[in-house]
Amino acid sequence: MQVGFIGLGQMGRGVAASLARAGYPLTVWNRTPGPLEELAGLGARIAGEPGETVRADVLLTMLADDAAARSVLLERGALDRAAPGLVHVNLATISVAFAQELARLHRERGLQYVAAPVFGRPEAARQAKLNVVVAGEPVAIARVEPLLRAIGERIWPVGREPERANAVKLAGNFMIASALETMGEATALARAHGVEAAQFLEILTSTLFASPVYRGYGRLIAERRFEPAGFPVRLGLKDVRLALLAGEAAHVPMPFASMLRDRLLEALAAGEGELDWAALARIAARHAGLREEDGAPPGGETPSRSAP
Amino acid sequence: MQVGFIGLGQMGRGVAASLARAGYPLTVWNRTPGPLEELAGLGARIAGEPGETVRADVLLTMLADDAAARSVLLERGALDRAAPGLVHVNLATISVAFAQELARLHRERGLQYVAAPVFGRPEAARQAKLNVVVAGEPVAIARVEPLLRAIGERIWPVGREPERANAVKLAGNFMIASALETMGEATALARAHGVEAAQFLEILTSTLFASPVYRGYGRLIAERRFEPAGFPVRLGLKDVRLALLAGEAAHVPMPFASMLRDRLLEALAAGEGELDWAALARIAARHAGLREEDGAPPGGETPSRSAP
Amino acid sequence: MQVGFIGLGQMGRGVAASLARAGYPLTVWNRTPGPLEELAGLGARIAGEPGETVRADVLLTMLADDAAARSVLLERGALDRAAPGLVHVNLATISVAFAQELARLHRERGLQYVAAPVFGRPEAARQAKLNVVVAGEPVAIARVEPLLRAIGERIWPVGREPERANAVKLAGNFMIASALETMGEATALARAHGVEAAQFLEILTSTLFASPVYRGYGRLIAERRFEPAGFPVRLGLKDVRLALLAGEAAHVPMPFASMLRDRLLEALAAGEGELDWAALARIAARHAGLREEDGAPPGGETPSRSAP
Amino acid sequence: MQVGFIGLGQMGRGVAASLARAGYPLTVWNRTPGPLEELAGLGARIAGEPGETVRADVLLTMLADDAAARSVLLERGALDRAAPGLVHVNLATISVAFAQELARLHRERGLQYVAAPVFGRPEAARQAKLNVVVAGEPVAIARVEPLLRAIGERIWPVGREPERANAVKLAGNFMIASALETMGEATALARAHGVEAAQFLEILTSTLFASPVYRGYGRLIAERRFEPAGFPVRLGLKDVRLALLAGEAAHVPMPFASMLRDRLLEALAAGEGELDWAALARIAARHAGLREEDGAPPGGETPSRSAP
Repeated sequence: MQVGFIGLGQMGRGVAASLARAGYPLTVWNRTPGPLEELAGLGARIAGEPGETVRADVLLTMLADDAAARSVLLERGALDRAAPGLVHVNLATISVAFAQELARLHRERGLQYVAAPVFGRPEAARQAKLNVVVAGEPVAIARVEPLLRAIGERIWPVGREPERANAVKLAGNFMIASALETMGEATALARAHGVEAAQFLEILTSTLFASPVYRGYGRLIAERRFEPAGFPVRLGLKDVRLALLAGEAAHVPMPFASMLRDRLLEALAAGEGELDWAALARIAARHAGLREEDGAPPGGETPSRSAP
Repeated sequence: MQVGFIGLGQMGRGVAASLARAGYPLTVWNRTPGPLEELAGLGARIAGEPGETVRADVLLTMLADDAAARSVLLERGALDRAAPGLVHVNLATISVAFAQELARLHRERGLQYVAAPVFGRPEAARQAKLNVVVAGEPVAIARVEPLLRAIGERIWPVGREPERANAVKLAGNFMIASALETMGEATALARAHGVEAAQFLEILTSTLFASPVYRGYGRLIAERRFEPAGFPVRLGLKDVRLALLAGEAAHVPMPFASMLRDRLLEALAAGEGELDWAALARIAARHAGLREEDGAPPGGETPSRSAP
Repeated sequence: MQVGFIGLGQMGRGVAASLARAGYPLTVWNRTPGPLEELAGLGARIAGEPGETVRADVLLTMLADDAAARSVLLERGALDRAAPGLVHVNLATISVAFAQELARLHRERGLQYVAAPVFGRPEAARQAKLNVVVAGEPVAIARVEPLLRAIGERIWPVGREPERANAVKLAGNFMIASALETMGEATALARAHGVEAAQFLEILTSTLFASPVYRGYGRLIAERRFEPAGFPVRLGLKDVRLALLAGEAAHVPMPFASMLRDRLLEALAAGEGELDWAALARIAARHAGLREEDGAPPGGETPSRSAP
Repeated sequence: MQVGFIGLGQMGRGVAASLARAGYPLTVWNRTPGPLEELAGLGARIAGEPGETVRADVLLTMLADDAAARSVLLERGALDRAAPGLVHVNLATISVAFAQELARLHRERGLQYVAAPVFGRPEAARQAKLNVVVAGEPVAIARVEPLLRAIGERIWPVGREPERANAVKLAGNFMIASALETMGEATALARAHGVEAAQFLEILTSTLFASPVYRGYGRLIAERRFEPAGFPVRLGLKDVRLALLAGEAAHVPMPFASMLRDRLLEALAAGEGELDWAALARIAARHAGLREEDGAPPGGETPSRSAP
């Protein structure tokens, strides 16, 4: 089985490496040459242009956003040069509308399109521990399932229409953003009454909210560690906007998502676009007049700011 | 050690039973006689009026809200008849302002006041598996710690000022409400694109959001099981309002909490005040024009409602 | 007809002066002596304590908030010393709940209670150009109508239950706050695209929005003139909270009002509580990263901040 | 001076008629033939295709949205056939991004682009009483000013960059939507306390808010007259989205606009997309549990719904 791979960003690199280690013969392409070396070291063939990756049985892509995918697949013509019967597995977080368009464009060319967005950080990609949400024709999914098993801890099929997988991914990312804002407001409330952020978050995230998202991001918020960004405000805003657009197309009001959009925009306006999106919590604290130092003295008593 | 106990609602009953089983000599009082029988069966003495419970070393109270506590402790004079040196452990979710007032009133009478609100459902109370957030004078806490250990899985001390524990409890309850609205909006988005609620929530709550709150409430939302209420909309609104008031007192804006207030009010206006507050998810679905049946056909294909 | 008057703040002073000039024999009381002199100059009798004002046919009060009214009328016993049949006209903006309580307390004492909150600034009070919203028993209103005509340009009767007038007043004040936030966001949008605040607001407030509220506050926003405050953030927050409380009592969700609460709290947290509440517009600009100087250069080209 | 005109919808028809009556030699085109007859009756020449209108000195267009303008001007090639030096005056409400793109495309072809969106209803268009916000090169504006004077009551120049005029128009439409929601919430509050909608709105819109927008829409809300739509929910949502997009491009958070988006989406999901957008007020009432009949009995006492 010949496998093409396009897009070696933080996530794509890990996924491609997992496939190479699983023994699949890979042809990889990336816009910039940097990440190619590692893959070459794992035995992958380096393609000189995107079109070389599509003379294969399966193509996997992990491109940054709709625009990047459109540029590589459509404008640079990769899709038009695809081998007959190719199954294209799109791992990226794209818009529901673009997923529908891609499905149509593949159908028109006699190609198969499978949406397979993933949940997980770069480390999870590297350790083949992603959660893969997958949608597409059952026969196409069946063909690529071994590859998905090689990169993910679990596969979650959600039906025939590819855009369903994207809706699930966008809804999930919205849930993460919402958890960040929630922790931000709750922590501001606790701090303003004299409870340290770290202590408050430890209580909640080791009991009722003991889940990967709350524990991981709770730690970042408690330590006010927003750099380097695991996932920057800028991309968080992009994904919340895609969730809102998916909601608009289907008439789903999402007031929490709307508010998150405004908060992330505010962060961007404040020059914080490259901070981790956990910095949403910093905005909540700032609006409450809490200074960075408040509530976290270096080993002394925590001052209460409870009202007079 | 003589122990008084007031308030045998769903939660109080379980807590008192744990104490009785742990061997503490209990004198219990409740506004209505129903729940007293069980406690009597466990060896507790039944008090004819609140004042009889306070001739003790420790008094624990678990009353429904500020008004109930005010009525029993202050208007009916229980506090004025307390034995010198009594430590009062208030397990209830009350306002930050009332916690401050109670602390003062106890100080003026030479009594000790310990705030010890708990996280956990009635079953957890019965199994002595609560999480107890505690604040008060260290010496008072030390005295009642054995009792707290008899009712809780873990004790979380947060400082000297009792209201700190209440701030943590209110912030935590806000976080639960926020998780409900978040799941509601995300599930509406997924359903509108053809993904069943149960499937969507299973994916998210068994991975990124695998925590007690998300798993437990996720199940209620997936099954649209809002009756009988574990915690009704009416009380949820009360607690969100207390969080907002605590925020107001300390100048903490809480936009998510504000929106939750409006949603819970809407549920009340729709006659849904006695449903479980997980019914927040039903409002999100309703606003998206999703009918109860949509997205959950009895075993067939899930219809997509994605826009034309 | 003997007339008592309590509360000579900015508004009360103007109203009382109008009554004195209209020839009514006034007995006035105020917590601080400052404003009394002016009234004495207009022929009013100065009362040594609140109780002296209620041995009259009509009592008018204009006290700052629920707490001030409660203190003077109830705790200091003014109401208990009222002449039989006294009609009490409460001009202040109080809560719906307190209006209901006051109505009951007057009924129990055989007194008449008329709610008559006013719209208008201190100048309007001084020029007897207020808009008076009035509610109470028709016979009581009929008795005081001449006095209301002496202070107001127009009288708006809204029914028998006094709290109705307060609901109208609170709803109206919410509408003003909402107009401020609206102008703030719209102006930020215009400025960010290179249109000066003054120009933008001139266009809108001299056409579609040519009304006293938009023109008056539009000018303050255009000139960024938030001091001295005509009506400070602190009091604006109080009134928005009363509107929210009135909504809660009757199950009326008010999402705009909720958001206004959060914005005004943010202003308070930023130490802007004594600015005019038109400063809401400054928060909108700040969140957009607009500096005070942006969009209003001293006579040159306006720089566009529209994104690349 | 030869004048072309494209787009004879409700607004365009009135504008074109004003120009014809002012004596300008018009060549008009419309997608459907219906409205052409009236213009022919006023002496206009009927074009068989869009390209015939652009062999002129000035082209005015009033097309429904970005897509319609893109189709006629770009895809059907009208712009490519324009006479050298043509000034194109775009009267429509389009996105800021598309305005920027159009400006560039005109520049590249040696044409002039003037943005001139208008405020006013179809009657105002017919009576040449529009408010015209205009932006573009001064020399181009000077050339078309006589035409603008023939259709508008007032001309408001806002600078050189065309998109500025669009930003002002979108900000203004957002302000109208915001006024609708504000009246909706305030009226729900008043009604829930027993004050009829008509009475409440009469008080506010004939005093503090005595402006065209509040008076006109206030009447619609008071009479619950949402059909036929002057401006339907569907188009209102479109414009609020354009305001949000303009905000996103320039990093301007707009929480009120975000909430309006969600409300208008909710109306769409409820099948109310063709009602007048004043129906926002109906959503506020519905969320408060107020029935259509509440607060407006046919000539009797208004029942209070104030809570116990």
